[in-house]
Amino acid sequence: METELSKRLGVEHAIFGFTPFPAVAAAISRAGGFGVLGAVRYTAPGDLARDLDWMQEHTGGRPYGLDVVMPAGRAEGATEAEVEAMIPDGHRRFVEELLTAHGVPPLPAGEASGWRITGWLEHVARSQLDVAFDYPIRLLANALGSPPPDVVARARDRGVLVAALAGSAAHARRHAEAGIDVVVAQGYEAGGHTGEIASMVLTPEVVDAVRPLPVLAAGGIGSGEQIAAGLALGAQGVWLGSIWLTTTEADLHSRALTAKLLAAGSGDTVRSRALTGKPARQLRTAFTDAWDDPGGPGALPMPLQGLLVAEAVSRIQKWETEPLLGTPVGQIVGRMTSERSVRQVFDDLTRGFERAVDRVQRIAGRSGS
Amino acid sequence: METELSKRLGVEHAIFGFTPFPAVAAAISRAGGFGVLGAVRYTAPGDLARDLDWMQEHTGGRPYGLDVVMPAGRAEGATEAEVEAMIPDGHRRFVEELLTAHGVPPLPAGEASGWRITGWLEHVARSQLDVAFDYPIRLLANALGSPPPDVVARARDRGVLVAALAGSAAHARRHAEAGIDVVVAQGYEAGGHTGEIASMVLTPEVVDAVRPLPVLAAGGIGSGEQIAAGLALGAQGVWLGSIWLTTTEADLHSRALTAKLLAAGSGDTVRSRALTGKPARQLRTAFTDAWDDPGGPGALPMPLQGLLVAEAVSRIQKWETEPLLGTPVGQIVGRMTSERSVRQVFDDLTRGFERAVDRVQRIAGRSGS
Repeated sequence: METELSKRLGVEHAIFGFTPFPAVAAAISRAGGFGVLGAVRYTAPGDLARDLDWMQEHTGGRPYGLDVVMPAGRAEGATEAEVEAMIPDGHRRFVEELLTAHGVPPLPAGEASGWRITGWLEHVARSQLDVAFDYPIRLLANALGSPPPDVVARARDRGVLVAALAGSAAHARRHAEAGIDVVVAQGYEAGGHTGEIASMVLTPEVVDAVRPLPVLAAGGIGSGEQIAAGLALGAQGVWLGSIWLTTTEADLHSRALTAKLLAAGSGDTVRSRALTGKPARQLRTAFTDAWDDPGGPGALPMPLQGLLVAEAVSRIQKWETEPLLGTPVGQIVGRMTSERSVRQVFDDLTRGFERAVDRVQRIAGRSGS
Repeated sequence: METELSKRLGVEHAIFGFTPFPAVAAAISRAGGFGVLGAVRYTAPGDLARDLDWMQEHTGGRPYGLDVVMPAGRAEGATEAEVEAMIPDGHRRFVEELLTAHGVPPLPAGEASGWRITGWLEHVARSQLDVAFDYPIRLLANALGSPPPDVVARARDRGVLVAALAGSAAHARRHAEAGIDVVVAQGYEAGGHTGEIASMVLTPEVVDAVRPLPVLAAGGIGSGEQIAAGLALGAQGVWLGSIWLTTTEADLHSRALTAKLLAAGSGDTVRSRALTGKPARQLRTAFTDAWDDPGGPGALPMPLQGLLVAEAVSRIQKWETEPLLGTPVGQIVGRMTSERSVRQVFDDLTRGFERAVDRVQRIAGRSGS
């Protein structure tokens, strides 16, 4: 599965795997894809350096990348404490009442909240970049907006390609004007932050909008058939995130959450502001229902909502409170029905792709492979 | 573009075109596709017979089909007057106030509302069927739910294939149990009634759910690349509705509406209950905004909402009141940027399909055609 972009990055298959787990990212690169490690959960630069050291040892020299969340020019220079002070008391009470109603205990004394998405804050993202540029990453992806010009320039100096996620053609055009190298067209059906245009429509629109820049199709892709569809739509590769969540290498820290993912159908997700303040697709839970309820206080804007709910999310995960337990995931969760190794997933993807190409060739009246 | 289903129906290309306009349906069949005439706007059986006579003369013996809207067992036997009586006065006032606020005049004296979707009513749909079975239609599609068992049996007796639209795998399974022959998997991005699962995810789920029944991919398809994607996802054909609305053969009765469609982007549609009482994708207008406003009375259930707004929609179209003027259409409206003949659209579709197959073959490392 070779495109100009996969050749440029030196990978066998134009399959990009986004994941917060180093073991998964490394396995994707070893399997012949391009592993992209999500950095948003790292709060201490030392933790990121430790995991990038590990990646260096476990990717066998294969290329990999890093994904940060850096809203250009937002809350610049603000400390976490300054941002925390903007959260209304009524919202804090709403969180406590929700947890109390579901009997969620506090974290054990001395145990810090492990799930803090302070990576949204620009200074945190910048300290991550200072670390990352010491490693031979081949691609830097930004999940929200275009990266600031100095970051794009710094990446270019080091030969690192810059990618950015886009939910509309207009959004993609702004990225192109900001000088980025690769656009990830993230459709409505994707897990995490997403707009309302579905991949079937979004991918070719973005391809046309930023031509000749390469586009990756993201959203709704978890099988080889879906990869073939994304490539037929003009993408130079595909970007998969959800599918790795139930691999044996993933570490969700909760068997109950893994079980919930394996049981969920494609209709069991929702685009909700509950987790970050911006619409992000995730499992629908009593937690998202509470925030999406017109009778509730509603979610705060980013980055306030993420800070507000960070400890609550840690507590829900720690105690595995089933009705509230969720995670960002796309509509393909309906096909995540068994735990497989990354290698098995990868083999299923490439085999399914070959089958889909056979099928389309046959329909087009051309001889098969 | 040949599949088992296209061979069974005797068409050159597995492209199914749904349209309310006989001239468009006939042109689709003449171009080598399968034209499906939407019957919901016909209130008098004589009108349908007249247009089916016309189809017979203008399809040159090529096969075509009919689409009805028959909710199985809903409001059985109720007359239009009985259903009208269920509409609250407050809702009627809301419609009048909305039209007054936008300065929409009444219809001229003696001019009947041309846009009445009484086809939702079962007795109207049944009288349409009585007419349709006198013609050599090859496929009968039902847009809502499975057709009643006696209708399925009657179609089978006449060698007419029965198709039904589905927005989820569970919905598709119920159709299969009801004995239908073809499932149209209608994704979130489609115009008209649609669920929340996008085509990229829905198509393969439905294919797996009803195997070996053939599935048509619908929603987000308006180019050859999108056709290739739909077929890669396992469909035996594609079902296109929106793309024909701006063809030269279409008769929208409003240049302003055609202009609005040509100018709209993929983000300018909304899933709203405004038109029928069930979520249907359409152009977002001041009319849909009014019904979707949490401060308003909200839409009534089907079929009440359709009866409630029928005359209002006729008035808006008659006087071309721009802010209120809309139509069901999918997210591909963003690529409908020029008026083309059905033949031109069809040629663009088949050429784009060949290009997409070339591209995917190349990526898969296979020799091109």
